[in-house]
Amino acid sequence: MALRQDVVVGAPGSAGVFRTRYVDLPAPLALDCGRTLHDVRIAYEAYGTLAPKGDNVVLVCHALSGDAHAAGYSDDPEAPSAVDGFGADERGIRPRGGGLGWWDGMIGPGKAFDTDRYYVICTNLLGSCRGSTGPGSIDPATGRPYALDFPVVTVADMVRAEERALHVLGIDSLLAVGGGSLGGMQALEWTVDYPDRVRACISIASTARLASQGVAWNAIARNAIMADPDWQNGDYYGSGRAPTAGIGIARMVGHVTYLSAESMRDKFARRLQDRDGYSFTLTEPDFAVESYLRHQARTFAGRFDANSYLYLSRALTYFDLARDHGQGQLDRAVADVKAHYLLLSFSSDWLYPPADAYELEGALRAAGKSVVHHEIQASYGHDSFLLEERQQAPIIATFLDKVANDV
Amino acid sequence: MALRQDVVVGAPGSAGVFRTRYVDLPAPLALDCGRTLHDVRIAYEAYGTLAPKGDNVVLVCHALSGDAHAAGYSDDPEAPSAVDGFGADERGIRPRGGGLGWWDGMIGPGKAFDTDRYYVICTNLLGSCRGSTGPGSIDPATGRPYALDFPVVTVADMVRAEERALHVLGIDSLLAVGGGSLGGMQALEWTVDYPDRVRACISIASTARLASQGVAWNAIARNAIMADPDWQNGDYYGSGRAPTAGIGIARMVGHVTYLSAESMRDKFARRLQDRDGYSFTLTEPDFAVESYLRHQARTFAGRFDANSYLYLSRALTYFDLARDHGQGQLDRAVADVKAHYLLLSFSSDWLYPPADAYELEGALRAAGKSVVHHEIQASYGHDSFLLEERQQAPIIATFLDKVANDV
Repeated sequence: MALRQDVVVGAPGSAGVFRTRYVDLPAPLALDCGRTLHDVRIAYEAYGTLAPKGDNVVLVCHALSGDAHAAGYSDDPEAPSAVDGFGADERGIRPRGGGLGWWDGMIGPGKAFDTDRYYVICTNLLGSCRGSTGPGSIDPATGRPYALDFPVVTVADMVRAEERALHVLGIDSLLAVGGGSLGGMQALEWTVDYPDRVRACISIASTARLASQGVAWNAIARNAIMADPDWQNGDYYGSGRAPTAGIGIARMVGHVTYLSAESMRDKFARRLQDRDGYSFTLTEPDFAVESYLRHQARTFAGRFDANSYLYLSRALTYFDLARDHGQGQLDRAVADVKAHYLLLSFSSDWLYPPADAYELEGALRAAGKSVVHHEIQASYGHDSFLLEERQQAPIIATFLDKVANDV
Repeated sequence: MALRQDVVVGAPGSAGVFRTRYVDLPAPLALDCGRTLHDVRIAYEAYGTLAPKGDNVVLVCHALSGDAHAAGYSDDPEAPSAVDGFGADERGIRPRGGGLGWWDGMIGPGKAFDTDRYYVICTNLLGSCRGSTGPGSIDPATGRPYALDFPVVTVADMVRAEERALHVLGIDSLLAVGGGSLGGMQALEWTVDYPDRVRACISIASTARLASQGVAWNAIARNAIMADPDWQNGDYYGSGRAPTAGIGIARMVGHVTYLSAESMRDKFARRLQDRDGYSFTLTEPDFAVESYLRHQARTFAGRFDANSYLYLSRALTYFDLARDHGQGQLDRAVADVKAHYLLLSFSSDWLYPPADAYELEGALRAAGKSVVHHEIQASYGHDSFLLEERQQAPIIATFLDKVANDV
């Protein structure tokens, strides 16, 4: 299979215009739950050019609601974009169809993930609804969408699917794997599962295991979806009714946890929305922040499948490096890793707090591994990994350069 | 009307066993929204004995989900208790029917609000569902429950109803008014609206105006209720279907905001609930914290009316001393107050953060008022006002003693 830069038309400042492509795994995929998934398809985009030796591949892993379209413009003018969230307006980003990829500020010529040097691949998660096989895909055994017959997948299952997809593309080793949030969990899992095939790991705004409060927020979001009668026990495909209200509530909860109290105060304060006084109603969104949340809920319900949300949320709460690989001990879990680690955390991220990164850093050091951790002072909360490019980019660029030159 | 200690049977360690009583306001109540409410009833309990001069009255105001049963045991064995929340088990509290009042640790003989000295009254909020007039009450104009015809009330409306109810009871001045959260808002509002009739204000874990993130959490909770089809635009009374799923989600959101990440980690960590491994399902509450939240949702749906939740949540997000009384300036809003203020905030309370209390303290000082503020180091988050008695009690007792002796 020819590996080349999938640029259709150049776009100033970005890596170009890109088309999402697909890999069909030639064999069934064994999963942590004991089941096997057939006919697995993984969507991906690729930026830059593969080096003749194949030693310049960087796999970028996305977070819960992301997709393979990480950089440049999409060639699909109807394609929703993952960057319609908080801060997109400040950054002058076109909010939807054909928009820039969710990490365009980080991936491109001369950027943190420099596509003039690295061949950057982003795969859509197993279980997602954005091109890869997920609960909305057709179950080959029945000819109907899986819905809740889709197996509960883990971060390790996602990583296994990514490894198999890359193998089909002729890629069996990575210069680096990186990502934020759930993407950072995948990056960590890669280094544990394939220690000889990953030279570097960039885990951003992430954790080796979500703390109790994060587990709770995810459970609330899932409960909100499952409480919506239109969810129909997951079997809503083709029924004409989808749990848009439930996923809207889930998105609101998630969204507030991705921001910080400080950034919300700066952006909204107690400003009223298009009115001078209170409406004295229950249903009007009097405050700008109320109106904003409703908009986020509506937009998200239109672009993301509720069942995929459930599966991916479950996977990230299950993720626990210490439990799965170290019998509860984090330093034991990383005893055999070989990668160089770069951990980035953000001072205002209270969902994946810096303390988690410090704990992981300590475990890696205790195990005698190579690790650098930067806690970045930033006000955007968890979303800093998407918004705070200025401080992240040079750290990542320098780290990748060192790893790439250390042959 | 005879004012006496409503003790039925003594109970060791508590103020006794109490019966909730009612006051019917003799005149309609004018509201901030411009409407007038007829046939207003206010539920209350009273503890201790009224001094001959009537100068020992302390009004205790409860928070969103509380009620008039603040102390002692209820004489109604079926009465649900407000203390079935987080920490109730640690405190050895009977979790439901006939249980202790929500602030029993603070109100009683020799306690912070010492019923051997003070006559403590707790009124149920206007708009609540626990005895006072609210959206579930019968509208005298139609003979049917108000539902969404109930006017949107404000904290000032609640305070006005309390003032009128106390007047019926022969009480026109307060030694002190105090409360936590929404109760603290009422205490503040009292001092602004009736500056000559309140000698002291104890505002705990509260704020002069909720910040953007708090407004957001409340909006999410309300949206969760209104997204439940069983809400039926509020007109669910007598339909056999109530929005129990929606208020359950609202409670889960609220509950997590009342705790702290630290206290959740201490209590739940990532402990699994009655299982050794993951269920690999979406619907099972694998984690203890997931199981706990479901229990909280179910319990709350059984004891609290969803419409009342909507109205009280709206009232507390509307509350804004600076906007309502100071043209946006907090020090202007308190220019004419005469009370002595005691502000208590808790280090781990991120919903009503200490910063809000410092801001209010600063505004009171700038206006030349008498104010004491203690930021208490406590790990329970916002719920500290209900759970952290050991540190609060002596501060409150000393403050009240000073005010009472400063005739």
